Amino acid sequence: MYISSVTPKITLVGAGPGDAELITLKGWRALQQADVVLYDALIDKSLLDVVPASAVKVFTGKRAGAHSMTQEHINLLMVQYALSHGHVVRLKGGDPFVFGRGHEELEFAANFNIPATVIPGVSSCIAAPESQQVPLTSRGLSRSFWVLTATTCNGELADDLRLAAQSTATLVILMGIEKLSEIARLLAANGKSDLPVMVVQNATLPNERCAVGTAETIVELVRERGIGSPGVIVAGEVVRLHREFLEEVHEQVAAYA
Amino acid sequence: MYISSVTPKITLVGAGPGDAELITLKGWRALQQADVVLYDALIDKSLLDVVPASAVKVFTGKRAGAHSMTQEHINLLMVQYALSHGHVVRLKGGDPFVFGRGHEELEFAANFNIPATVIPGVSSCIAAPESQQVPLTSRGLSRSFWVLTATTCNGELADDLRLAAQSTATLVILMGIEKLSEIARLLAANGKSDLPVMVVQNATLPNERCAVGTAETIVELVRERGIGSPGVIVAGEVVRLHREFLEEVHEQVAAYA
Repeated sequence: MYISSVTPKITLVGAGPGDAELITLKGWRALQQADVVLYDALIDKSLLDVVPASAVKVFTGKRAGAHSMTQEHINLLMVQYALSHGHVVRLKGGDPFVFGRGHEELEFAANFNIPATVIPGVSSCIAAPESQQVPLTSRGLSRSFWVLTATTCNGELADDLRLAAQSTATLVILMGIEKLSEIARLLAANGKSDLPVMVVQNATLPNERCAVGTAETIVELVRERGIGSPGVIVAGEVVRLHREFLEEVHEQVAAYA
Repeated sequence: MYISSVTPKITLVGAGPGDAELITLKGWRALQQADVVLYDALIDKSLLDVVPASAVKVFTGKRAGAHSMTQEHINLLMVQYALSHGHVVRLKGGDPFVFGRGHEELEFAANFNIPATVIPGVSSCIAAPESQQVPLTSRGLSRSFWVLTATTCNGELADDLRLAAQSTATLVILMGIEKLSEIARLLAANGKSDLPVMVVQNATLPNERCAVGTAETIVELVRERGIGSPGVIVAGEVVRLHREFLEEVHEQVAAYA
């Protein structure tokens, strides 16, 4: 028999797309009851103010392209802290199950027989266009949306993206800013040079920025505005609903008049 | 010049997938500052306890198949209340921009020059599978997910669904329980009889229920368990990660042994 004075427990919490207030009430309350918080990059630091002063706070600092801590290391830390300290909150950007490897973390915890649950978060795949008041579907424009990452583990353009470029769905591409010109070329190769495309950086934060154009113009617009990662790319007719899209078109017409 | 004693303002708020605590902190705070709340069906009534006692609360009761209030009526109410009472919170299930006609409501408000914003919510398209600990993407199983509704306005099976049935993306189908057998047939017609399929009803609520099978078995399983709307259908290899999927397979193997 094994008796311990701590009750190990792991809660994966989605912190939402950026704005600290976009965490769920449930996630917020989990933070208030944390003995340990393991938090990712891109988390609003003000969320840590909610955590009890006695709690351990560990920055796991994973970012695309610059892994300062491996997933294996994070998994182990999570389990170690749960067994030594009790309630571990694993605070992740967006939603833990949208390209977040949250499921792997749950499975890892299950191997150690540690109760683990997940509290969803608002994903930037929906909130980023929404923050620009662009819906992912709209009657007469698009009836569905397809969420993808741009690249495979090898850094190659994902196969799903090639299929998606042929579809009528609104495409939402995460972690794709570095591949924007390849994506634009892919759309053009599918006869979609005129397809409206939008890029949103730092969605829901005070420094949110956006570029709105077409598959033909978006790369230049993003360069002009100095927009970079982390960003969400939205390609589809719904982007026409963005206020700036109409203005852009008017300007272009005026330039030719 | 027009001078009014009230300051009209409209805030669309996503209430999340079911569990009242899955509203965002920002949405919760908007409710605390509401003069009027227009709330949809499928909203946890405990959210109304947060609203000031003096506020007007109106049930707009829109449900698939039984529109007790038309969208036009809701739009008008929203604007009338904003001009007569001040801050209107329009509380909608899930996320206001995921098949929620939230964008139409914002546009309608803009026509009347009333400031209108949207606070995102956790969408059931992600939270329903997550609540069953199934991720929408997973290395080696699926690299993207495609979110659709099952039918067009006419009640016909959506064209996007026919394309989606041919893709490798995880499919998330909202408002589709009534069309489940058609969807299962469509998958079978695309050589996907063995594709894992899951149906989740009342996700994140105490009465959450789930059936896990394949395109071939899911209709019968859902019937056996009496699962109905509102529900989310997930079709894709990731459903193999559901605990019950493995058990089902073991049972079937045992039955043949």
